[in-house]
Formats: sequence, C-alpha cells, structure tokens
Amino acid sequence: MIDFFKYNWMVREEWFSLCSQLSENELVQERQGGLGSILKTFFHIVDVECSWIQAINGDVVSEPNYEHYKSLELIRELSRESQDVVNKSLLNWTPKNEYKSVSVPWSSKTYYYGEVLRHVIVHEIHHIGQLSIWSNAMGLKAVNVNYIGRGFMDNDKRIIEGRDII
Amino acid sequence: MIDFFKYNWMVREEWFSLCSQLSENELVQERQGGLGSILKTFFHIVDVECSWIQAINGDVVSEPNYEHYKSLELIRELSRESQDVVNKSLLNWTPKNEYKSVSVPWSSKTYYYGEVLRHVIVHEIHHIGQLSIWSNAMGLKAVNVNYIGRGFMDNDKRIIEGRDII
Repeated sequence: MIDFFKYNWMVREEWFSLCSQLSENELVQERQGGLGSILKTFFHIVDVECSWIQAINGDVVSEPNYEHYKSLELIRELSRESQDVVNKSLLNWTPKNEYKSVSVPWSSKTYYYGEVLRHVIVHEIHHIGQLSIWSNAMGLKAVNVNYIGRGFMDNDKRIIEGRDII
Repeated sequence: MIDFFKYNWMVREEWFSLCSQLSENELVQERQGGLGSILKTFFHIVDVECSWIQAINGDVVSEPNYEHYKSLELIRELSRESQDVVNKSLLNWTPKNEYKSVSVPWSSKTYYYGEVLRHVIVHEIHHIGQLSIWSNAMGLKAVNVNYIGRGFMDNDKRIIEGRDII
C-alpha cells in the first residue's frame, strides 16, 4: 500500500516540476473537465489525501482554503507538509487495520480503513491522468507516469516479514 | 490487489456503457493527448493489462491487433475475455509471488511480479482519467470513478486468512 502512495508523491513532484515552467495565467486558466484548472487539481489532490488520512486517524482535519494557496509553490509546500502527515500515519499501517471501521466528518457513513486508503490512491492517479490531457494541449511533454521502472521493490523485502504487502 | 483490478473492471464497464451512446465517428475521432481517441484508449487498456499478465505467467501473449477491434462492442468483448484470463491468474496470487522475478518479451529487463501488477493497475486508472476530460468536452457526464462506496470490502474478510491484502 505504501508504495502506491510513494508512487503518487513521486509523480506529483514530477508534475509540479513540469508545471513550474507555466505562467500563473496558464496555471489558473479554466479548462474543460476535472477540477477546471491545473492549480485547482493539484490543490484538490493534496487536500483530499490529507483530509481522508487525518479523518480516519481521528485527527483534526486541517481544511486548507484554496484561496490561500493560489500559487504552485504554495501548493507544493502544502503537499510536502501533507506528505509528512500521511507518511507518519502510513508507517503505523498493518494489515490488521484494513477492516477497522472509520468515519469522517463529511459523511454519515462508515468505511473500512483499507477502503479509504485505496480510494485516496486511485483518486490521485485519476486526476493526474486529467493533467496529462491538458498539458498535451499546451504543448508540454507529459510526465512519464509508468509505475514500473521506478525501483519500488528493489531495496525492499518487507513482504518477507509478512506485512505491508498492500 | 485483486480489489484494484475489480475496481478497474467495474469502472471500465461503466465507461463502455457511457460511451455506447457515442457515434462511431466520435469514438475514433482524433483527440489531443493520451492515445489519441476513445476507442484506442479502451483497446490500449485491455491490451496492456492482458499482455503483462500473460507475459509474467509465462503464457503466450495474445497480441490483439487494433485494426481487428475497431468498434466499442468488439473491444468490450475482448475486455471480458481478457478479464477471464487475468482473473484466473490473480486467483493464484499469493503474497509469496510478490518478489518473484519475471520477464516479458518486449523488454530485456526483469521485474518483480508485484511491481507488474501495480503497474497494470495504475496504468488503467491514468487512462480513465484522460477519458474523463474528453467526455466532458463532448458534454457527457463522466462516470463517477470513486473507489469508495463500491462495497469492495463488505463481503470480504480475506485478510483474516492472511492473504490477498494487496
């Protein structure tokens, strides 16, 4: 499971770098579909990931306001802070948590802990796919988002310990 | 791990259904980014998933030719056949396979079995994200691709058996 998050963070950073060559206008320009702009997409990805993880851990949800993060650098900073929060939480993850029942302030439903983690993983990959269409339309060469070839399992035999194989 | 595949197949079927209302012209129309058309995207998703799974299991890679599948219904049929192949393979998956070294005919590198499964999962989600931008531009209401709320873990306590928690 953690490797999927690491993948998302790696790809996210590569997209931040690619988009750092864009003007402020290009970043906030309204586009068709998805969240409507590149900046809003980045913000949404970071916000959703951190909010769900904080919520299922019973922590206060920080609820950042987009209006205060209307630059790529500010969102990138928020993203790194958020990754610290999420990473600390994931380090405590074990398969035993998978079926833990959790709730979140924005829904009356209860969820499984593992279901939320997968939701957050999928959520980011989906929105990154949207960025790739927009960036192509702007003449940018999209980030190579292949999972394979990033060496996630090279230095890592955690499976042998019988945990963290999600 | 298997749940991610089930998620992808569920979402893929919903996209097939949504796109079945489109004309042939709309399906093959050249679009910016990604694979360049809706039909090519569906074909690519199915082809990549099945090819990798066949290859890492040492089976013959079927290598379907896009020219023979230039309709939504033909690709949908191919998708269902492919899901059978992949599903049978996944049913044999255990955490012990994760670090099994595998090779594929189209690369001189070797990979970890688990790394390939994750690659295939991420690959489809990314391309579905691209479809969502194109469909929006065509005035379609994109499929709700949330992972959460699909009940993946409701009837499923496989984790208790200590396997299939990826």
